[in-house]
Amino acid sequence: MPDQPVSDRSRRIQDVTPFRKLFAFLRHSGYDKRRLDPEVFDFTFGDPHEMATSEYVEALRDAALPQDELWFAYKQSELAAQEAAAGALRKVVDLPWTADRFRMSTGGFGAITVSMKVVADPGDEVVYSLPPWFLYEALAVEAGLVPIKVNALQPSFDLDLEAIAAVITPRTRIVIVNSPNNPTGRVYPPETLRALADLLEEASARNGRRIYLISDEPYNRIVFDGATFHSPAEFYPWTLLCYSYGKTLLAPGQRLGYLAIPPTMPDADQLLEAFESVQIAAGWLFPNAVMQHAVPRLEELSIDVAHLQTKRDRFVTALREMGYTVASPEGTFYLFPESPIPDDEGFVADLAQRGVLVMPGTLFETPGYFRICLTATMATIEASLPHFEEALRSTKPTGT
Amino acid sequence: MPDQPVSDRSRRIQDVTPFRKLFAFLRHSGYDKRRLDPEVFDFTFGDPHEMATSEYVEALRDAALPQDELWFAYKQSELAAQEAAAGALRKVVDLPWTADRFRMSTGGFGAITVSMKVVADPGDEVVYSLPPWFLYEALAVEAGLVPIKVNALQPSFDLDLEAIAAVITPRTRIVIVNSPNNPTGRVYPPETLRALADLLEEASARNGRRIYLISDEPYNRIVFDGATFHSPAEFYPWTLLCYSYGKTLLAPGQRLGYLAIPPTMPDADQLLEAFESVQIAAGWLFPNAVMQHAVPRLEELSIDVAHLQTKRDRFVTALREMGYTVASPEGTFYLFPESPIPDDEGFVADLAQRGVLVMPGTLFETPGYFRICLTATMATIEASLPHFEEALRSTKPTGT
Repeated sequence: MPDQPVSDRSRRIQDVTPFRKLFAFLRHSGYDKRRLDPEVFDFTFGDPHEMATSEYVEALRDAALPQDELWFAYKQSELAAQEAAAGALRKVVDLPWTADRFRMSTGGFGAITVSMKVVADPGDEVVYSLPPWFLYEALAVEAGLVPIKVNALQPSFDLDLEAIAAVITPRTRIVIVNSPNNPTGRVYPPETLRALADLLEEASARNGRRIYLISDEPYNRIVFDGATFHSPAEFYPWTLLCYSYGKTLLAPGQRLGYLAIPPTMPDADQLLEAFESVQIAAGWLFPNAVMQHAVPRLEELSIDVAHLQTKRDRFVTALREMGYTVASPEGTFYLFPESPIPDDEGFVADLAQRGVLVMPGTLFETPGYFRICLTATMATIEASLPHFEEALRSTKPTGT
Repeated sequence: MPDQPVSDRSRRIQDVTPFRKLFAFLRHSGYDKRRLDPEVFDFTFGDPHEMATSEYVEALRDAALPQDELWFAYKQSELAAQEAAAGALRKVVDLPWTADRFRMSTGGFGAITVSMKVVADPGDEVVYSLPPWFLYEALAVEAGLVPIKVNALQPSFDLDLEAIAAVITPRTRIVIVNSPNNPTGRVYPPETLRALADLLEEASARNGRRIYLISDEPYNRIVFDGATFHSPAEFYPWTLLCYSYGKTLLAPGQRLGYLAIPPTMPDADQLLEAFESVQIAAGWLFPNAVMQHAVPRLEELSIDVAHLQTKRDRFVTALREMGYTVASPEGTFYLFPESPIPDDEGFVADLAQRGVLVMPGTLFETPGYFRICLTATMATIEASLPHFEEALRSTKPTGT
């Protein structure tokens, strides 16, 4: 029993998580200061780059005006928030959602980590596809779970159902699906989700133990070209739908999200009671009182998805004209172009030298790509384009 | 591998935690509605019973006015919040606190659960005294730790240092101290804290492994009679000081707190880096952006401690005159009288019949007592007194 100042678990979390390397890199490169520098073109995180709208600000400020003496008292899931969330989700995912199956949480993070702990025990396996959200592994390790990763199909970045089927074992308890997908921008079609549901139903029967699906869908309202989003919850009743308001409202610092259980899921009461207990025991992972009071108003608001689509189109077209290979995302606010050289970290470092901050594919365990976040302004996008062009040109042999 | 819909861990949390029984009891007794009924005298939770002050409300509303485009972006620990917290703590606990050793958290809960996970691994033991805050056990079980409980000395409710020394084993990693104490109102004197520090130093040396002290001190500014509060951090460098703003501001729904590491602690950087990683991996346990922006203003505010003392004095005097045995708390906003009959749950049920809601000592694993929360108004206190008197009289044989 060596005298280490910190626990093994915290060292495991620090060791295995690409996000830690990222934070370290960004901190050491002066990222916090640089992204406020007008000479720097910041395409890293899904953070806002324009002032919040007055509608958003007033929704928060009004929610901070107490209407009774318990306004700032302990809150779990406020009924008005649950009802507003259920009403809004009915318009996005075609199921008869009811308020009693919603639990408000501190962002999508809170919903995902509690979901993991409610259904899975240490040693259980959680399957997800690469490239993933770079925090799945940290959340899984903190929960004592074993991450099992499969590559998405390249270059389409569709789910590789055969690969998923191949890694399922008797210890598989969770499969995470993230559609619309960060970072690839793919929106999985209904036939894929139906086939996945069949696969999980069959594997659950074979295991004699239910495999749950965590549907991480914070981008379910950010789809382009008038496409219809489909949630795994429509096809697989044992889906834990985790939502964050941080993307639709572009205010990730305000920590608001929820878990929603589809009306088709059996044993929902038992699961929801367990969820609430873990939510408390894991650190009272309920959104604060003001945010819960604000939900009905916030559900009326959204970033301008049409403008986002305009930015997507401008950026994709410009990059392709330069010679980049980049798919046009169907949803989310990310582009995931191929790196012009195999060493994506090197290419990203070169872009950073030019004042352009993006994320290397290696942070998403998918070398050879890089991620661009479209929450930057159109002006930033336009001003950055010459630098993208020069960076690409610098990778080519001269004199050709 | 049986097909249970929820994990073993969530059932363990649900099974062992007295707070779950409480929530179930209160829900089934219509508590949520009853506490808003003016005929009901609610002395249960440390929740507000008066409208929030305009100073508090305006601090939040002003903090929701964006001053730059990153106002609602992802936040970890904002420097201005850390600096304000450090400056304020210097006035409460006599150590040269510095901002870099503060990590802002979602209330005291967040700071405590992350502290546990950062220093202790599953199977490690965490020692605390009864009566405890009724969520320590849930937090410990969720973290995989083994709760080891010792009784405080009765009737003084001082720490029983011999009992603590007796339960320390090579697996002991954490001792939790809660002063000013909920529910007993005791403020441990410096000599006790010094002796505890010596004891832990000696046991750590014997074990060859550091025992950390978690100082859960959300009431450190709520002390009466001009007394001076002393933190364990003054005496034991390996103290993780966990603070919540929910008590001082009487706004527990707003989820704001911090971890502070004393300047005397070695290896602090390693611990703080691990803390931040676990804070992220456990569900992004940072206060939201608005609350972090509000900290400098909020540090200027406090409930009226003098008025609380007036309520304490009125209540204690009245209860004693009736014939109750009750110590006068030195801090916090709780009274912890003896139940006039050994069956405290029965006595509490009788009070509830009379419209008076209090908590039985069994919820604090200390039968024979009950807890009264002083956040109720003076009017509620006055109006409740006849009911306390009748309840006491009903326990006495008639005709004497």
